[in-house]
Amino acid sequence: MSRFNPLVETLAAPPIPHVFAWGDAYDGRNGPMIDFSQAVPGYPPHPDMLRLLGEYAASRAYTGYGPIEGEDSLRKAYAAHLSETYGLPLAAGNVHVTAGCNQAFICAAMAIAGAGDAVLMTDPYYFNQETTLSMLGIKTRFAACDAANGFLPDVATIAAAITPDVRALALVSPNNPTGAVYPAALLSEIYDLCAARGIWLILDETYRDFRPVGAGRPHDLFGRAGWENTLISLYSFSKSFCIPGHRLGAITAGADVIEQVAKIMDNLQICPPRSAQAAVATALPLLADWRDGNRLEIARRVEALLSTMAGAPAWKVGAVGAYFAFIGHPFEGVPSARVAEKLAKEAGILCLPGSYFGAGQEGYLRFAFANADTQTIGLLRERLNRFAMD
Amino acid sequence: MSRFNPLVETLAAPPIPHVFAWGDAYDGRNGPMIDFSQAVPGYPPHPDMLRLLGEYAASRAYTGYGPIEGEDSLRKAYAAHLSETYGLPLAAGNVHVTAGCNQAFICAAMAIAGAGDAVLMTDPYYFNQETTLSMLGIKTRFAACDAANGFLPDVATIAAAITPDVRALALVSPNNPTGAVYPAALLSEIYDLCAARGIWLILDETYRDFRPVGAGRPHDLFGRAGWENTLISLYSFSKSFCIPGHRLGAITAGADVIEQVAKIMDNLQICPPRSAQAAVATALPLLADWRDGNRLEIARRVEALLSTMAGAPAWKVGAVGAYFAFIGHPFEGVPSARVAEKLAKEAGILCLPGSYFGAGQEGYLRFAFANADTQTIGLLRERLNRFAMD
Ligand SMILES: Cc1ncc(COP(=O)(O)O)c(C=O)c1O
Ligand SMILES: Cc1ncc(COP(=O)(O)O)c(C=O)c1O
Repeated sequence: MSRFNPLVETLAAPPIPHVFAWGDAYDGRNGPMIDFSQAVPGYPPHPDMLRLLGEYAASRAYTGYGPIEGEDSLRKAYAAHLSETYGLPLAAGNVHVTAGCNQAFICAAMAIAGAGDAVLMTDPYYFNQETTLSMLGIKTRFAACDAANGFLPDVATIAAAITPDVRALALVSPNNPTGAVYPAALLSEIYDLCAARGIWLILDETYRDFRPVGAGRPHDLFGRAGWENTLISLYSFSKSFCIPGHRLGAITAGADVIEQVAKIMDNLQICPPRSAQAAVATALPLLADWRDGNRLEIARRVEALLSTMAGAPAWKVGAVGAYFAFIGHPFEGVPSARVAEKLAKEAGILCLPGSYFGAGQEGYLRFAFANADTQTIGLLRERLNRFAMD
Repeated sequence: MSRFNPLVETLAAPPIPHVFAWGDAYDGRNGPMIDFSQAVPGYPPHPDMLRLLGEYAASRAYTGYGPIEGEDSLRKAYAAHLSETYGLPLAAGNVHVTAGCNQAFICAAMAIAGAGDAVLMTDPYYFNQETTLSMLGIKTRFAACDAANGFLPDVATIAAAITPDVRALALVSPNNPTGAVYPAALLSEIYDLCAARGIWLILDETYRDFRPVGAGRPHDLFGRAGWENTLISLYSFSKSFCIPGHRLGAITAGADVIEQVAKIMDNLQICPPRSAQAAVATALPLLADWRDGNRLEIARRVEALLSTMAGAPAWKVGAVGAYFAFIGHPFEGVPSARVAEKLAKEAGILCLPGSYFGAGQEGYLRFAFANADTQTIGLLRERLNRFAMD
C-alpha cells in the first residue's frame, strides 16, 4: 500500500514550474523571451497600492488573528464594488474573503460536494479546478466547448452531461484558458438550467475586470429571486490589482454558503492575510480609474495580438478575450506539449500546451498575452512564421 | 438531499467567535476581562518585525506569484534554525512554507489520508485538527491521555488504538489544550511505535519556542535513519513572532512528502503570502534574543499561574506548560461550556470549555494564560474563589 493518499500521489505535478524550466533553457537566439506563460499582469501594481500594503503591514493593528470571513472593511468595500458592477445591492454578509481564488474554489467545492460526488466542468477547463476536485475524490464530468462556437459552452451539451451525481457546474468567465467572455444571456440560460436541475453554479470571475470596454454588466444572476440557492461567484484580487503574491480573493454567495465556507476556512487557515485586506479595502475605490486604464491596455493588447496573428496565417486564433488567447497550432498530430516546449526553447515564446486544459486540446496553446506589452506581442508574427517542428 | 456537503454541514461552527460573544456580554463588574481564550501572545511583535513586514510589503519584488513551497530565503533561514534547534542538519528542501499551521496540518493530512482512512489523535485534541479530518471524511480515532499522568499520552494506549485503517498519529507537543510538554524520550518511543506499525507521525510543534527554559532539545527524531518515512513536523510563525494575522507556518518533512504537499498547496493557494515570508526570513536570526526573552516571560507566567491557583484549591491544575493550562473546575456534572460561559459573563474570565477538545473533557477548562501578563494572571485567585454555579 502506498504511504501517500493515492488521490494526491497520482496528481500531476503543478504545471507552471515545469513550463518555467523550458523557458530557462531558451538561449536567447531570437531576442528576449515572449512570456505568455502565467496569468499575471505584465505591468506593475499602482504605487499607492504598494504604499498601502506597506503601511498596513507595518501596523500592529493587523498582527492578531482576524475574522474568518475577512476584514469588515474589505467585505464592505467589495460588496459596494459588486453592487456597482452588477447594478444590484449586495451586502458584506454575501462576501467571504479568501487567500486567492484557487482557495475560493476549493472552499466552494468542499462546501457543496464530497468524495464520490461529481462536479461538471467545461472542456477546456482551468487545470487547478480539475486537480482540486480530483484530490478531494470529487469526480469530474466534462461538457465540451466547440471551437467552431468560439469555445462558448453549449446549454444542451451541459444539460446532457448533468448526471444524477453532479452537484455543481463550474464555469470560468472570462475563460481561462480560452479568453472567451460568456455573454450575459448565455450565463442566464445556463443559470436557469442549473436552478431547474437543482445543482449549484460556481462561476469563477477572476478576469471580470478585463472584459472588453463597453461590454455591459457581466451578468444579471445576482438579480434572480433566490440566487443564493444556485449561484456561488468567485473572484481574485491578484490580477486586477497586480498583487498575486499577497494572496487575496473572494467568494460571493448567500449567507448559508458563507456559513459553510467559514467552517472550512477556519480549518484551512483561520483567516486570510490581514494587512493586505485592509490595503485592498482602501484601494478598491481609490484605484478605480487605474483599473479602467488597465482594461483599455488589455484591449490594446487584444488588438496587437489579432494584428500580429493575422500575419501568421498557419496559426489560428481559436478564441481571444480578456487576458488569454487560445491558439490552434499548425502541427496536426503533434502533442501540444512538444510544440510548446520547442516554442519556448527555440523560438523564445513561452506558453502553455492545450493538453494542460483537457485531453482533447492537443491542437491548441494558451497565450496569456496580457502578460506582455503590445510591442512584445508584435514580435510574434515573425517568430511563429519562422518556427517549424522537425 | 442537502444542498451542502454533509461532512461540512454537520461540522460545529468555529468555536472561538462563539466564546468571544460570551466575553462581549461581560459587564465589567470585577474589573477588566482576564482573556485566556485564544492562543495569541499578549505582548506585541518586535518593532523590527513590523518594520520588516512594512518594508517587504511595500516592495514590488513580492507582488508576483512565488514558489509554491515558499520563498527560498525563508526555507533556508528556517532550515538553519531547525538545524540549530535539533542539533542536526536539515535542508531547505525539507521545508514547505504554509499560510499558518492549520494549513500545514490539512496539507499533511491530505498528503497521507483520504476519505475513509483514519487518523489517530490524542484525547484531548486540538479541535481544528479534528474538524479538519472530519470535513475531509477522514475517520478519527482517539487515544485518551490520563489526567493522573499529566495528560501525557501512553504508548500502550496508542498501540492499542492503531486499527488497520489508521494512516497516521497526530500529536501536539507542547500540547494544545493541556500545555503538557512531551518529553523527548516519550516522543522517541512513540516514534518507534509509528515506524514499526508503518504509520506516519504528524507532530505539531507550534509551541516549541515556549518550552521551559533549559528543557533541552524538543526531540531527536530528525536524527533517526529514515525519519523521512515516518515523521512530518509542523510549526507556526504565528505565536513565536506574534504575527498570526500574517499567516505563516511550515512543514518539515522528507522530500517525498514535500512533493505531495506542493501539489496540494498549488490547489489550495498557489503560494503562501510572500512579503511576510521575506520579513520572517530576516527576523528569524535577528530576533533570536527577543524570542528567548519571551520564553522567560512565559516561564514567569507559568509561575504566576501556579501561585495564584495554589490559592484557589477547589480548582485543579491538570497540566500546565508552554502557553496553556488545563484546569479542572470544581462543579462535577456541570458541562464545561456552562461553567466557561458563566465565568466569562460574570467573573470576567474568558477561557475555553474542555468539551471543545474532546467529549470526555467536561471537567476541564483551557486557560491560554500566555495571553495575559503576570499581574492579570494574579487576579485569578480572587475571581475563582468568589465564583459559584447556581
Ligand atoms: C480562472 C482562475 N481562477 C483562479 C485563479 C487563481 O487566482 P488567485 O491568484 O486569486 O488564487 C486563476 C489564476 O490564474 C485563474 O486563472
Ligand atoms: C496546536 C496548534 N496548531 C496549529 C495552530 C494554528 O496556528 P496558525 O496560526 O499557524 O494557523 C494552533 C493555533 O492556535 C495551535 O494551537
